[in-house]
Amino acid sequence: MGEFELLARIRERLPPPGARVRVGMGDDAAVTEPAGATATSIDTIVDGVHFRRGRSSLAQVGHKALATALSDLAAMGAEPGEAYVVLAVPLDLDEDRCMALFEGIAALAELTGTTLAGGDVTRSPALAVTVTVVGHAPSADAFVTRAGAQSGDLVVLTGELGAAAAGLVLLERPDAAKALDAEVDAALKRRQLMPQPRLQAGRALAAAGATAMIDLSDGLGADGEHLARQSGVQLRIDAAALPLAAGVATVAEAVGVEAIRFAASRGEDYELLATLPSSELRAAAAAVEGTGAALTAVGEVVAGEGVEIRLPDGRLLAPEGFDQLG
Amino acid sequence: MGEFELLARIRERLPPPGARVRVGMGDDAAVTEPAGATATSIDTIVDGVHFRRGRSSLAQVGHKALATALSDLAAMGAEPGEAYVVLAVPLDLDEDRCMALFEGIAALAELTGTTLAGGDVTRSPALAVTVTVVGHAPSADAFVTRAGAQSGDLVVLTGELGAAAAGLVLLERPDAAKALDAEVDAALKRRQLMPQPRLQAGRALAAAGATAMIDLSDGLGADGEHLARQSGVQLRIDAAALPLAAGVATVAEAVGVEAIRFAASRGEDYELLATLPSSELRAAAAAVEGTGAALTAVGEVVAGEGVEIRLPDGRLLAPEGFDQLG
Repeated sequence: MGEFELLARIRERLPPPGARVRVGMGDDAAVTEPAGATATSIDTIVDGVHFRRGRSSLAQVGHKALATALSDLAAMGAEPGEAYVVLAVPLDLDEDRCMALFEGIAALAELTGTTLAGGDVTRSPALAVTVTVVGHAPSADAFVTRAGAQSGDLVVLTGELGAAAAGLVLLERPDAAKALDAEVDAALKRRQLMPQPRLQAGRALAAAGATAMIDLSDGLGADGEHLARQSGVQLRIDAAALPLAAGVATVAEAVGVEAIRFAASRGEDYELLATLPSSELRAAAAAVEGTGAALTAVGEVVAGEGVEIRLPDGRLLAPEGFDQLG
Repeated sequence: MGEFELLARIRERLPPPGARVRVGMGDDAAVTEPAGATATSIDTIVDGVHFRRGRSSLAQVGHKALATALSDLAAMGAEPGEAYVVLAVPLDLDEDRCMALFEGIAALAELTGTTLAGGDVTRSPALAVTVTVVGHAPSADAFVTRAGAQSGDLVVLTGELGAAAAGLVLLERPDAAKALDAEVDAALKRRQLMPQPRLQAGRALAAAGATAMIDLSDGLGADGEHLARQSGVQLRIDAAALPLAAGVATVAEAVGVEAIRFAASRGEDYELLATLPSSELRAAAAAVEGTGAALTAVGEVVAGEGVEIRLPDGRLLAPEGFDQLG
């Protein structure tokens, strides 16, 4: 397989470039004219660490690589702009298989209005996909960082938790929860294999006055800690308020884990955790619901540090270790 | 090793951010306010493909990853701005070794005025470093693409050719050219292990009216073809004019290869190949020399396609295959 031939095929498949792109894929660098401010993030997924080739289709691997990168833009409230992609492919991935993987990237790029503006292909012992995404806003202040949460703000959450972790259990142990409805089973696996970045919800929350925001890649506990630390506050979360996805409780019971663990400690849901003044909750919820996701108030911001997840009986949920390299 | 701990150590080592950076490493995305236009490129180097761990120090691996990415900005005539880095590290790379690798990146970032604005660390079966770089210019037109060469332009080249390929020979076969002066030997190896992006020369060429430009990563033949194709012209190059680095002829002879092959077909020199009107040559040469590199006129742009490298006896140099995935 030739690098140049593959890149030529990829260029033929590219969706049309966005209005900011002056020179797209195929030169030394892509040229863009951003208006205002940009938000830029880089993310990588590696076979055996973030996915397994036997379990995901190649298109799903491509989708997941771009989706997890775009999720960081969602958490800034950014409008997606450009993506730059490195495919690191082992010898058994021929040109057609590379194109199948690329198809997953291109389809999500099209869906989200992201221009694939640059890339590279290289040999590698393990399949890995690295994506840099650039998002836009009129000014730097329009982005929502992790650092603005204020004491007295509400803590809100898009969508539902635990689905990606439950999906992983079902993929690893197909017999784990036989009683599960087939559609629910498929939906949970899909949340693991094909996460959806909450781009529209992120922009709605930014417009509605969110003071801080983060996407849940490592789990509510770990990512909540990041937000709390960078804002210099404590997040006090009501476990009973956490919205669990359908089927998560069944899967959790089947594997002998408290369901709350799936919501609090497991990652890859790619929902958005945000803080905002309570006066803005109604408008924010309406705006987020307009994008197809629920918005749930799950706690409040108080003086202090870290994350406290309070169980219905008043005990605090003990933290699990989550500082794993992965 | 914890991902968060390592990232915390990396953040402590960061050079101060550039003026365009509003939010640096440690949020969901970096926030910048570019003025005018940006040039963005992504590049990856993988152990066993682009370097070998036994041969390079970890700092050299880090240096090479950022250097090869910045070389693409040099070829646009861009001012370096921000870099986003993924370290994909195998299990035997502990925190201190990761920091040694990062040191090579940070040192070159400092030297070139590049802000390390974002990154990610992940486990991987093989060491790989991926870097996205963003460069700046007042407007999109200020960048030099591969597509503007005009019939009648001169073809010019910064620095000297063949050093990186000769250095690779010396690293692979330490006994290949024993007669070589020790300093020359070390210089050739350094060109292979620690390439230097021609950032200042690239901006000097852009300012001096270069019509098209590319950096030589794959070799004069292959990269010249890219420029010729995208400009819709032919590059007619005089082999006798190609500036060979000191020691290359000796290494070539020792391994039984024509020296011209090291100049024409081997990659990784990261010199700049540009085209410009002949009226601009003197000023361009003076400007490039002011950055510490020679500028040599090596041929002319004519109607036609591809690259012709003409030997002193009038024969054309037969092309070698260079469409290798790597």
